[in-house]
Parts: sequence; C-alpha cells; structure tokens
Amino acid sequence: MAKKTHTYAESGVDVDANAAMVGRIRSAVRRTYGPRVIDAYGGFAGLFRLDYDERLFQRNYREPVLVVCTDGVGTKILVAIASRNLRTVGIDLVAMSVNDLLTVGAEPLLFCDYIAIDKLEPERVAELVEGVADGCTESGAYLAGGETAEMPDLYRKGDFDLAGFAVGVAERRRIINGRRLIRPGDVVVGMASSGLHSNGYSLVRKLVFDVAGLKITDHVDALGCTVGQELLRPTRIYARAVVGLLAKYPVKRVVRGMANITGGGLPENLPRILPDDCAMVLKRDTWPVPAVFDFLQEIGVADDEMFRVFNMGIGYAFVVRPTFAHAVVRHLAKLGERAYIIGHVKRGKGTVEIR
Amino acid sequence: MAKKTHTYAESGVDVDANAAMVGRIRSAVRRTYGPRVIDAYGGFAGLFRLDYDERLFQRNYREPVLVVCTDGVGTKILVAIASRNLRTVGIDLVAMSVNDLLTVGAEPLLFCDYIAIDKLEPERVAELVEGVADGCTESGAYLAGGETAEMPDLYRKGDFDLAGFAVGVAERRRIINGRRLIRPGDVVVGMASSGLHSNGYSLVRKLVFDVAGLKITDHVDALGCTVGQELLRPTRIYARAVVGLLAKYPVKRVVRGMANITGGGLPENLPRILPDDCAMVLKRDTWPVPAVFDFLQEIGVADDEMFRVFNMGIGYAFVVRPTFAHAVVRHLAKLGERAYIIGHVKRGKGTVEIR
Repeated sequence: MAKKTHTYAESGVDVDANAAMVGRIRSAVRRTYGPRVIDAYGGFAGLFRLDYDERLFQRNYREPVLVVCTDGVGTKILVAIASRNLRTVGIDLVAMSVNDLLTVGAEPLLFCDYIAIDKLEPERVAELVEGVADGCTESGAYLAGGETAEMPDLYRKGDFDLAGFAVGVAERRRIINGRRLIRPGDVVVGMASSGLHSNGYSLVRKLVFDVAGLKITDHVDALGCTVGQELLRPTRIYARAVVGLLAKYPVKRVVRGMANITGGGLPENLPRILPDDCAMVLKRDTWPVPAVFDFLQEIGVADDEMFRVFNMGIGYAFVVRPTFAHAVVRHLAKLGERAYIIGHVKRGKGTVEIR
Repeated sequence: MAKKTHTYAESGVDVDANAAMVGRIRSAVRRTYGPRVIDAYGGFAGLFRLDYDERLFQRNYREPVLVVCTDGVGTKILVAIASRNLRTVGIDLVAMSVNDLLTVGAEPLLFCDYIAIDKLEPERVAELVEGVADGCTESGAYLAGGETAEMPDLYRKGDFDLAGFAVGVAERRRIINGRRLIRPGDVVVGMASSGLHSNGYSLVRKLVFDVAGLKITDHVDALGCTVGQELLRPTRIYARAVVGLLAKYPVKRVVRGMANITGGGLPENLPRILPDDCAMVLKRDTWPVPAVFDFLQEIGVADDEMFRVFNMGIGYAFVVRPTFAHAVVRHLAKLGERAYIIGHVKRGKGTVEIR
C-alpha cells in the first residue's frame, strides 16, 4: 500500500521563516548586551556572569538575592493588533516586569520574552522583538533569551500574545520591604505615568470602541493625537530613576517602600506595602491627571472606579522619610522624572484614602 | 445629562475570582519552597538568596553565572484543552525550559509561569499551576512567580496558553560548551524520553485526528492506552539525572557536551554542540524506539522526517569521554534513567549521521 506521507512544514510550521527571523532580530538582541553577558546567542540558554568586576560586585552584593518578576501586557495587545503597530508593546512588556522588580530595591539584570503568534512572519516578530530590546536598553537589562511559538490553531489570524520575565539582583540587607519599614509620618512621592501604561485595557477598549464608537485612527482633540497613539503610548520604565535614587542614598534608609501602580490603581497597590498599623492619605489635587483619564471618565466611568482601575497619572510611588521628601522630588527631577509629594502615612489599618 | 457608567468587572474581568484562585494555588506554590526562598508570596516579586549556606555556596560557585531559558509547550496545549486534562502540561512547561538549562551544566534554581486564559476559572488555573508545581518539585526549582492573564477577546472559549521561564546557576569555569570540549572519539550517551515530550504536536494532531480520524478518547492497542493518555504523557525532566551525574565527576571533565532533544530531533539538536571539525554517527538499533513513534509513522510519515521532527526515544544526550561511557550509563541507571551508548564523534564537518 502506497501511503501519502506528511511533513512538519505542511502542518503550518515554517522552519525556514524561523531561521530568517532569528537572523533579523540578532542585532536587536545584541544591542542589549553588556560586558557581563557570556555570548551564547543561538545556544540552548542565556548566560550572565554575576561576578564580572569581582571587586565591584563584592562591594555591591555581599549577599546577593535574585529577584524575579513575570507579566504580560494584557489586552493592550489587542490595540496593537488593531493598529498594526507592534513596535511599542515590547516596551510595555519589559516595563511591566521591570517596574515590579524595582519595588524591592533590585537592579534589573536580564529579561526573556515569549511570543506566541498565529504565523511566524519575520516582519511582525522582528517589530515585537525590537520593542522588547528598546525596553531592555531603557532598563539596563540584557535580553537573555526568547521563544517564538507559531500556533495557527490557537491564535486567530493576525493575533499574538507576549509574556515577559525579568531577573534582577538586590543586596539582602538592603531589600526594601515597606511592610517592615514604613512608619507614620512618612511621605508618599509619586512619579508621573506616561498615561494608561498597560492596565485596564478591557475597560478602555469597551469605552472607546463600543460606547464612544471611536476608531483607532480617529483624532481626538482633547488628547492631541489619535486614539491609537494615545492607547499605544508605552509604559514608562522607572529603572534609571529608581536605581539612581537608591544609589544616591547608599547608607541612609531614605526610601521605606515602593509600589508599581498597575491594575487596581493607587487604592489597591499601595496597601500591599503598608504595615497593618499604618494607613495612607493621598491628596488628589497634588498631581496633574493626564488628559486621557478625563477623556475616559467623560465617556462614562464613576470617579472611584477610575481610581480603582487606572493609575490616574501616578505610575510608581515611593514612601520616604519626611525630612528627605523634597530632596527626593528634586533628585528624581534631575533623573528626568516628574515627581510630586502626593500624601503621607498615618496610624491606621492598612487603608489608602484618596481625598 | 445622566450617563451610564461602566465598571471593570463588566468588561469581563472578575477580580474576586482572581483572589479565590490565588488562595487556592498558594499551597501548590509553597511546596516548591526551599530554604533559600525569601517568602514574598503575594508581593511584587519572587526573591531567592544566592548565598544561603555561604560556605557551601562559595565552595560550589566561586564565579556564579546565571543561566536562563524560556519556552512554551507548543500545540500540545491544544491536546490538553481537547482532553479537558490540564494537570500535566504544567510539567511539560517546566521540562522544556529546565532541560535546556541543564545542557550548559547549570543547576535549576527557580521558575516562573505565565498563564493566559479565556476566563479565569479557579479550577482550571489551579490544575495548571499544580502541574507547574509538580514540575518544579521534580526539577528542584522554586516556583518564584507567576502571572495569570484573563483575556476573553484573545483566547477562544476554553483556550489558554502557557509560557515558562527558568533560572539556574553554573560555575563559570565548569560551564559545558560542547563546541569547545568535544573531540573525535567521544561517545554519545542517550537518555530515554518518555514519548513525544512537547514537540511536533502540529504534525501529531494532523496525523492522529485528521488523517487517522481518531478521537482523543479512543483506545489504541498498539499504545496500550487512549490517544489522550499517550499524547499528554509528560515530558521527562532530567534535572536529577544531569545534576547527579555532574556531581559524580566534580573534577574530571567527563561530560563534554549535552543536548536537549526537542524540535528538530537528533539531527538538528546535536549539531548545535558539535565543533566545526567534528561529526557524529548514531546507530539507530542501539536504543528502543517507543511505540508511539511507530504508530505515527504507520499513519504516514517518511522515515527521515520522523527523525527530523521527533526525539524517537532519546530525550537528552551526553557526549562523554570514551573511557567513561559505560560508567556514565551505569550511573544514570542508578539515578533512575534508561541510558544507552548510541553513537560516537569522529572528524567531520558538524553533521550528524544516523545509520
């Protein structure tokens, strides 16, 4: 009996396209390399020396602790797909994990990405990886590895998903755990977000596309740009600011806690770092709320729901010793961040009140 | 004008279900914890001390190198979805990254998972995470973090995807780089796979479901189980075997190269570790080929294509110094692995010939 034989390529997986793509993204990946990278591109694993400048490393890290974070970009990905602009979601991907990692006082070391896609088209994958490399460069992290999975039966035509993993290092005795360090009287300093960052996009898409009936290419005067431009604005990466600020205070424990303001907004992320006997009071007129939030609220969201879902203009928060609050704001400004004193800590029961 | 207001829950994201699920998977996660874990469950990041027993650590790792790998499980996920059995793909997820990490001589330290799913149903997510925790326990890795993303607009009803990320550590001077160490005369030792592992599933599904017209619940006599049972057999995790074998030879460079046999099979994975002036000859009658491969070939795949897509019974390969080959096989047997001398290295041009 003669049988028809079947090949792997026939089942929808193009091994040659994969090879072409690997070549194309090589330069994007290599620009994230630093001197501690052991070049193993194309090997089974990414390698990173912890001890590159042994003297320096031993001074900085007597008891190194690895810090790891993982995240995706949620349904912001669907906005990228609809816009056919895949360049910036890679930055969001890095930002989501790296900003989390910073909160314990860690310095980003390396990052890996996972891309799942309906069809391995080298252009689309290269655009995604170049965004990831942009985010790594901004974070000072080495793009140590990545996986691109072509799965036409799981992802619809044109769809893809991203997952990111960041590894950092912190000195054990300098790990910042707000729940142990924060005290009444401490001051809350907020850093400006770049806009929506990468949270609340299920609600954003419903409001903008379903309720308001806007299109991705529509220009909105209140925003000064198109819907797509506003919704794809990359998440701000706070690595330079946070690493820079902590480096300014190598001995004094000026920073008592940090929080990355993601899904759940200020009222849900700040309690995660508060001791049980403390509460926080934020004054909402102390920082400017970007136009995109007024725009969304106008379409129809209650005021408290806005704060529960969105960052409302504060992407990252520090809790600092009161006598250093103004110096921290000034130093963050030198590091290129708009920062504001937005509240303080008092005795209480772990709540965050926004007045 | 009275406006209808919209909430986040309304847009398909159930924050309460997320809280319920986090509680449920807590115990699965905690059973992966070792003494080097700094417990931060529910915090922003996973923390792992590199220096737990400082004396021990300094002896083992004078110049520690971080090794990172990332991978998914490909379309094996679609078999899990069709079977409504989500318990084992988490093991596959860990195996895919950890087995890669082992190839450079690294010891697994920690793992993170990313789960993207149409709907955050606590039972399904808990089943997935428990499988991941099983894989971590088997690997000796700490489940340091995870992200579960509910994205009903990206994933169809019942669908999900997984990405995994492993971090290990290796002593710099003991990193195993086959391209520098392998010499003519070295012997290839293969460890038995548990079956298909997690590669080639686009072809497998086409053959089994489309060409042969089988159903996931059909019993196949040649396999001694149902289609679903065979296709969901978890990928073997080689952590204990590889770490155990390398620990047996702390000084002698017995192992000159290692390869995880994944997509591309023996002919594509083994050349990745070969020096340019070496070639490899494998003798195919030296190891037993599991029944599943004969079963798939019978449905209709050419012999050479079988070897290019599937592991054909060898899940992981060592290249070892010839005088130690039999000792390595015996030691792997003691560590619970079936291992075979399957070939040797000769002068050549980086090719792998299977006779």
